[in-house]
Amino acid sequence: MLKRYLPIFTWLPHYHKRLLGADMLAGVIVTAMVIPQSLAYALLAGLPAVVGLYASILPQLFYTLMGTSRTLAVGPVAIIALMTGAALSPIAQPGTEAYLQAALVLSLLSGLILVTMGALRMGFFSNFLSHPVISGFLTASGILIAASQLGSLLGVSSSGFTLIERAITLIPNLPAFNPYTLGIGAGTLTFLIAMRRYGKQTLTRFGIPPALADLLTKAGPVFAVVATSLITWHWQLAASGVAVVGDIPSGLPALSFPWADASLWRALLIPALLISLVGFVESVSMGQMLAAKRRQRISPNQELIGLGAANLAAGITSGMPVTGGLSRTVINYDAGAQTPAAGAFAALGIALVTMSFTGWLYYLPIATLAATISVSILTLVDIPMLRQTWRYSRSDFAAMAVTILLTLVEGIEAGIIGGVTLSIALFLYRTSRPHSAIVGRVPDTEHFRNTARHDVETVSNVALLRIDESLYFANARYLEDTVYNLVASHPELEHVVLICSAVNLIDASALESLDAINARLKDSNVKLHLSEVKGPVMDKLKKSDFLDALTGRVFLSTYAAWREFS
Amino acid sequence: MLKRYLPIFTWLPHYHKRLLGADMLAGVIVTAMVIPQSLAYALLAGLPAVVGLYASILPQLFYTLMGTSRTLAVGPVAIIALMTGAALSPIAQPGTEAYLQAALVLSLLSGLILVTMGALRMGFFSNFLSHPVISGFLTASGILIAASQLGSLLGVSSSGFTLIERAITLIPNLPAFNPYTLGIGAGTLTFLIAMRRYGKQTLTRFGIPPALADLLTKAGPVFAVVATSLITWHWQLAASGVAVVGDIPSGLPALSFPWADASLWRALLIPALLISLVGFVESVSMGQMLAAKRRQRISPNQELIGLGAANLAAGITSGMPVTGGLSRTVINYDAGAQTPAAGAFAALGIALVTMSFTGWLYYLPIATLAATISVSILTLVDIPMLRQTWRYSRSDFAAMAVTILLTLVEGIEAGIIGGVTLSIALFLYRTSRPHSAIVGRVPDTEHFRNTARHDVETVSNVALLRIDESLYFANARYLEDTVYNLVASHPELEHVVLICSAVNLIDASALESLDAINARLKDSNVKLHLSEVKGPVMDKLKKSDFLDALTGRVFLSTYAAWREFS
Repeated sequence: MLKRYLPIFTWLPHYHKRLLGADMLAGVIVTAMVIPQSLAYALLAGLPAVVGLYASILPQLFYTLMGTSRTLAVGPVAIIALMTGAALSPIAQPGTEAYLQAALVLSLLSGLILVTMGALRMGFFSNFLSHPVISGFLTASGILIAASQLGSLLGVSSSGFTLIERAITLIPNLPAFNPYTLGIGAGTLTFLIAMRRYGKQTLTRFGIPPALADLLTKAGPVFAVVATSLITWHWQLAASGVAVVGDIPSGLPALSFPWADASLWRALLIPALLISLVGFVESVSMGQMLAAKRRQRISPNQELIGLGAANLAAGITSGMPVTGGLSRTVINYDAGAQTPAAGAFAALGIALVTMSFTGWLYYLPIATLAATISVSILTLVDIPMLRQTWRYSRSDFAAMAVTILLTLVEGIEAGIIGGVTLSIALFLYRTSRPHSAIVGRVPDTEHFRNTARHDVETVSNVALLRIDESLYFANARYLEDTVYNLVASHPELEHVVLICSAVNLIDASALESLDAINARLKDSNVKLHLSEVKGPVMDKLKKSDFLDALTGRVFLSTYAAWREFS
Repeated sequence: MLKRYLPIFTWLPHYHKRLLGADMLAGVIVTAMVIPQSLAYALLAGLPAVVGLYASILPQLFYTLMGTSRTLAVGPVAIIALMTGAALSPIAQPGTEAYLQAALVLSLLSGLILVTMGALRMGFFSNFLSHPVISGFLTASGILIAASQLGSLLGVSSSGFTLIERAITLIPNLPAFNPYTLGIGAGTLTFLIAMRRYGKQTLTRFGIPPALADLLTKAGPVFAVVATSLITWHWQLAASGVAVVGDIPSGLPALSFPWADASLWRALLIPALLISLVGFVESVSMGQMLAAKRRQRISPNQELIGLGAANLAAGITSGMPVTGGLSRTVINYDAGAQTPAAGAFAALGIALVTMSFTGWLYYLPIATLAATISVSILTLVDIPMLRQTWRYSRSDFAAMAVTILLTLVEGIEAGIIGGVTLSIALFLYRTSRPHSAIVGRVPDTEHFRNTARHDVETVSNVALLRIDESLYFANARYLEDTVYNLVASHPELEHVVLICSAVNLIDASALESLDAINARLKDSNVKLHLSEVKGPVMDKLKKSDFLDALTGRVFLSTYAAWREFS
């Protein structure tokens, strides 16, 4: 029981010194690496930079207690920061106390939703975010985030959460760009892209061992932060209009509860739900991938509780909504983290910085952070996936394209809701016009195949009709039409056998249709038979009157029906 | 082409005298029978009684031109009248000019929606109104309509479109009931119920031939109308507070177009959509049933156009939304109508009455009409269906129960939308946790059955896993869990064969999961095979990279896989 709800007890009792060294090293590396991105994501959400640090301390510690992944690192992430900004900006002005309070309410709400879903074991809910919708949403969000950083890279202001809003607010300000800011932004961008592409191979060529070269490459953003801070400090560029992080209050956040009124909680409910779902999906799919690499397992329902607890912690420590982040987790994993203790050490490291060293961040240019975000976010943009999905399935592609377009043009909520709705509608549409086939016997076997695709034996007064779909309300009438057309076009028919090998469900509407078909075929002196009815379907049919009214028989196999009639 | 869009040309050229006699007789009978109900349904919608007559003339003529059913009679019906009242009452005060105009806008909108759906061949849309939802909705509407007539039967006023609103407005007025009205209402009610239950057998016992007895029984409402009108006139009961139909303007309606502003059209869009769908489903299911009895066929998409044209006609002739009505159609069918000409004759008959004889309706008590509606509406309330559905399927029952409760408590729109949403959600939930089975070979055959249900042969290093559902986003992760659990609990496994006989679709999300399963089993030295993949599914898989990456093979039949491994 204790182990189930506090998974820390599955590994802490077996903890020993060898693990401690690895975890502490990973903790130190993660601390250095995630500070710039934590600041950046807080700014992306329209919040003060320090909120990103606060959200990396207690939330990570809570996840260490209650999460099931060994290596997941929890904190602010780009997508969730973007969604947070989009949710809060219609409600309050960024920079105001009301905006900060709303961010806390959003964190608490997300936490409550996640914990509730975990307690009710509703992890399956996230399945309705289909792969094309998620991938389309990530691509569009990547583009939106990159667009949102353009202003910071140029030293001009822009706002909005759709491409059009961004363009409208950005373009008139373009002539007023700041050349120093642009220099720092473009320089950092070039350096980071070059590091990503050529860093490791160049360093290896200089005789640095591959593992260290890899680590140094990943530390690119840290070098950029240090270098541009020094430049800005040395030439006092802040006086020339280069925006810097500036004063960050030092010390840990006080515990507080956002006593907002009910209307604010209601207004943030849908955004909180979407943030919870997207955060959960991002976190769990990454957690599962990494767990699989080390032959470990994670429990999606307990993950809901762990992530929920992390968000509750963010809500009472002046943080912002958090989830398992891709880049911070990969850093943690690659730095050799063995247990969730590594995450705890990183949280303590960040707490130390927050208490004593925030002054060091004063001269850090915002443009450097913007360049860091832009480079890391472009990994989300997955253009090959678009092509691949188009080739495989037009309707999956449609869901993906609509998600991308809606997200870019109408915003994040519209994108997700539109994409999910369209996926469901397309699935229902596909199942509403099921594939069906008249089958015949493969000579000298007990197998039956589509007469249109294979060379098979048939009997003129018997139609063997295989319906390749569960029978339910959306296709019940289509089934009727199919059978009536079949009988109308083959006046010689005396028997129709419905092969139910692919029928996994017959709901009340379909049962009604089967009753109607049976009655109408009876009027035309055609008998209706069933074959290969699955166990669970047969169990339900036995509870209705259909089998009593059925003019024909129920055969265990299609071959049995064949022997009877041929 | 002409025949397709104006189906009148399929039967008019072959028309002859024998048909004329039958159709004219049916027309006369229908005229007499439907006048009281047309008046009553207009009042139910909160409209002047004469609107019911107007809506029975041109709409029926248009349907005669463009509809495909031979016997359907089109005009105001109870459910649609109730929905019309519910849609209009938040927008205008009953009795005002604005209310009348809104009714015309609603008719035109319904007409446009129906014609558009017909032109786009979207008849399948109505399939999403599942059987339990329709039947629950009809039951709840029947109860609501009966409740709405209580006030008229007692001679007191009440209003509202939920049971609670009705009760709140009715109860305080109860002490002011009018004894004469109650007498007429209760008398008519008793007479009509007695006629329904004992009329035919009593009349036959008096030596009247069964066919005539049947007709006389059905004419019960006409007798009641005549008798109570005479009583009210003779004793001048209107002066004692008995509400009567009163002055009805004589003459045909003028052609007019409701030039309302855009906001009204927008406000009525959703109600018009629901009215269109419900009207279409009611009309088409009845049309199909009656067509089947005479071995005729109707075309659902052309029916949309025919019903749409009828509603457009209602919108420009001071009418109200119409559809094919159950009781008027049954009267028409039983009276021996042979072609849609019978409907045209009835329309002409009603036009004649509207032009010259509306004075005869002056003394007709509203309570008589209320009793007529109440009795005919109670056929909609289908309590046995509730029990039957409960026995067959709990989730179909849930959809039905939610539809009934929401309709009664929250109103008509909430009922339909809630019911449809729940049906879809339950279907998705069911398919998100698909049934799967480890199968084994039925000894000495090529058949494979669930090892849990049958005594079958298995091989220890091979798992034959049959998944009984299409693989798509909602169950993709569940599939992964199923396979991983299987492999984790059977360390001796070397081969997993996924039997795809019930897999009718593999979408992009499921393909991603199959890729993941394949890769992960490969790490564990387990090969993944497929068997019995359907043609259309295989065609799509060939367009992806999955088959190249697959560690195992694709077998045509499970038996082929069995021979390979055993």
